[in-house]
Amino acid sequence: MLTFDEYQQRVIASVGPLPAQRRPTAEVADLLGMVTAESVRSAVALPGFTNSAMDGYAVVAADVQRATEESPVEMPVAGDIPAGDTRQLELSAGSCWRIMTGAPLPTGADAVVQVELTDGGTERVQIRGAVDAGTAVRRQGEDVQPGDEVLAGGTLLQPRHVPVLLSVGVDEIAVLPRPRVAVVSTGDELVSPGEPVAHGQVVDSNGPMLGALARECGFEVAEVRRAGDTAEAVRQALSELAQTADLIVTSGGVSAGAFEPMKLAFEDSDHFEFVKVAMQPGKPQGIGTVAGTPVFALPGNPVSSLVSFLLFVAPAARVLAGRDPAVPTVEAAVAERWTSPPGRQQFARVVFDEDGRVVRPIGGQGSHVLGGLAGSQALAIVPAATTEVAVGETLRVIPLEGLA
Amino acid sequence: MLTFDEYQQRVIASVGPLPAQRRPTAEVADLLGMVTAESVRSAVALPGFTNSAMDGYAVVAADVQRATEESPVEMPVAGDIPAGDTRQLELSAGSCWRIMTGAPLPTGADAVVQVELTDGGTERVQIRGAVDAGTAVRRQGEDVQPGDEVLAGGTLLQPRHVPVLLSVGVDEIAVLPRPRVAVVSTGDELVSPGEPVAHGQVVDSNGPMLGALARECGFEVAEVRRAGDTAEAVRQALSELAQTADLIVTSGGVSAGAFEPMKLAFEDSDHFEFVKVAMQPGKPQGIGTVAGTPVFALPGNPVSSLVSFLLFVAPAARVLAGRDPAVPTVEAAVAERWTSPPGRQQFARVVFDEDGRVVRPIGGQGSHVLGGLAGSQALAIVPAATTEVAVGETLRVIPLEGLA
Repeated sequence: MLTFDEYQQRVIASVGPLPAQRRPTAEVADLLGMVTAESVRSAVALPGFTNSAMDGYAVVAADVQRATEESPVEMPVAGDIPAGDTRQLELSAGSCWRIMTGAPLPTGADAVVQVELTDGGTERVQIRGAVDAGTAVRRQGEDVQPGDEVLAGGTLLQPRHVPVLLSVGVDEIAVLPRPRVAVVSTGDELVSPGEPVAHGQVVDSNGPMLGALARECGFEVAEVRRAGDTAEAVRQALSELAQTADLIVTSGGVSAGAFEPMKLAFEDSDHFEFVKVAMQPGKPQGIGTVAGTPVFALPGNPVSSLVSFLLFVAPAARVLAGRDPAVPTVEAAVAERWTSPPGRQQFARVVFDEDGRVVRPIGGQGSHVLGGLAGSQALAIVPAATTEVAVGETLRVIPLEGLA
Repeated sequence: MLTFDEYQQRVIASVGPLPAQRRPTAEVADLLGMVTAESVRSAVALPGFTNSAMDGYAVVAADVQRATEESPVEMPVAGDIPAGDTRQLELSAGSCWRIMTGAPLPTGADAVVQVELTDGGTERVQIRGAVDAGTAVRRQGEDVQPGDEVLAGGTLLQPRHVPVLLSVGVDEIAVLPRPRVAVVSTGDELVSPGEPVAHGQVVDSNGPMLGALARECGFEVAEVRRAGDTAEAVRQALSELAQTADLIVTSGGVSAGAFEPMKLAFEDSDHFEFVKVAMQPGKPQGIGTVAGTPVFALPGNPVSSLVSFLLFVAPAARVLAGRDPAVPTVEAAVAERWTSPPGRQQFARVVFDEDGRVVRPIGGQGSHVLGGLAGSQALAIVPAATTEVAVGETLRVIPLEGLA
């Protein structure tokens, strides 16, 4: 029996980052959640041209240095410079341009007087206050210089990176692609959602749940399928999926029964291993490769599948994606006692209370209990040495919302 | 000037939940992130049939009550019951069936002896320990009874709800749809990403960023478009989008300049209002409706747009979706002083340090600074009365990752 930490480390060490791809920057909406493979350096200055930070009048600061409320300086207005004006304009001494926020400053101007300090004139204007040179001027390149690194390699792309990525004049960036995860359910008792359910049969809910988890965690779902319950059918399905998927996750067929298709298919393979992990739920696990593609074989109970996905498959897929494999946790205090099996690290379904500061156990902890799974909000981590979780104790818990 | 809280409350109060839709349960992968409009009650019992919780032998517990390691009870094996066996089987007294996890218990059996307590025989088996009636048996309906509520109305659908939803024999559920958000950028200075950028022009990065934010927050993006810089062009674009979108967000054209297209288009409308909010960034805001569709007009600076989206548009869209409008925050301590303008609630760009427990300010706080926006990890909320943020002070901060 492996400890939980031993097996999780083995899983994480079994995979490495996917090869980087060059993708058009203009497709940035599709790149969010991916990690940059190298730093992004600007090809341009930002701002690209010196412009006004205010709506007002572009002036030479020296021309208005004696302007006051009581004794305004009046000067002719050469015209309007709206945002988007592409003309190369000049300022003549003793005059000004009316200028809008973001519009290019005319050559010769060194400050902008905000409209509130004037009478707002369009032919001639009265300036009612002095400004220093540089006032309300955004200088070309003051934000970013050509060659500046605007994103480090290893950055997880988020909406806030969109403006700078689209503005730095770079056509392509190198990213690690989203891992393509294929999901396979095994078990002759399964029928697809919507099909009639006979005595002895159950709806395949693991496949759709694992697909949903993969998408929620930011991966691409290559396919969700059921394989028959023979070793041959399972081998065939995984060989096909290994052609296109970066990672395959199966559920079912890994425990002690006489007809365990994953075990029958791969227990003699040099590239596969079936282990017992000192955890509850999720004890039987399989890990291996098919045609070089990593495969994680999870137990078939829905609760075991969900827990195994979050603790093993998601961290491995994050490694493929160049992301941090760590499973995010928060701290919470125990509000109601429960028991945990000796020698096994428990991941107990709990609900939050008091704004997320405390947790209490929910429903039966049997791993087939769908109602309790749906009602739970987090998994509380109980160390293997603990057999009774006491009120007031502090535990790390894994929230089941916001998995991305 | 409105306080931040006054305006945020006005925004939230201006919208209500969208009408519910009935959607096929089998499409649950597309329903994740939506909220149930009413409770979901099971049409079936779960488990649907009494079944084995272990791989082992289905027996009458009384038949093996004297079995021990030293003195096993031997009995004939009537056959195998694999998972998925749809036969209605019976157990004859004094015999047993070999049975797999999840397989239906034969009539007459009341317990399962796990395989580890036997010699694993297939014709005859030696049972080496007694079991109580009910051992390793999952009774029909012990998880869910027909008519039980398995999901309350108002539940935000998550991967963990998939198994129960697909298993309860319900063809359709009522959900609030994902709000369709249309994004419009105004400004004659804008060119689309990938187009050549002339003197005086800038790439439209707000539209793609607001679209990315909408998707990240769990909404549907109806369209991202640019409108010309005239009042007529803006009115036309919004009238078109109001036909299909549930919410329209615009950026630019709301401040004090002479050519502000949103203001020119709607300042005389009875259904629109332009206000100043005591916050930094994000002071000029517009709120209204076009053909009954809510419109939020944000300032055009990228930083102002992002902050305004998270604080006003996302909460409003969450109301449409039946979700909690509250903006999630965490607490952090200040590691480095900065200043805040008097009388305005500041949303300062900060980075986390020491595992997220402390924050420090990043880059210039000017609202046009793309580099600083990309590098920030959170927005620290500085109350309007504070002008200097001191080291050691505790602030609420809004993380910029995991927005869903």
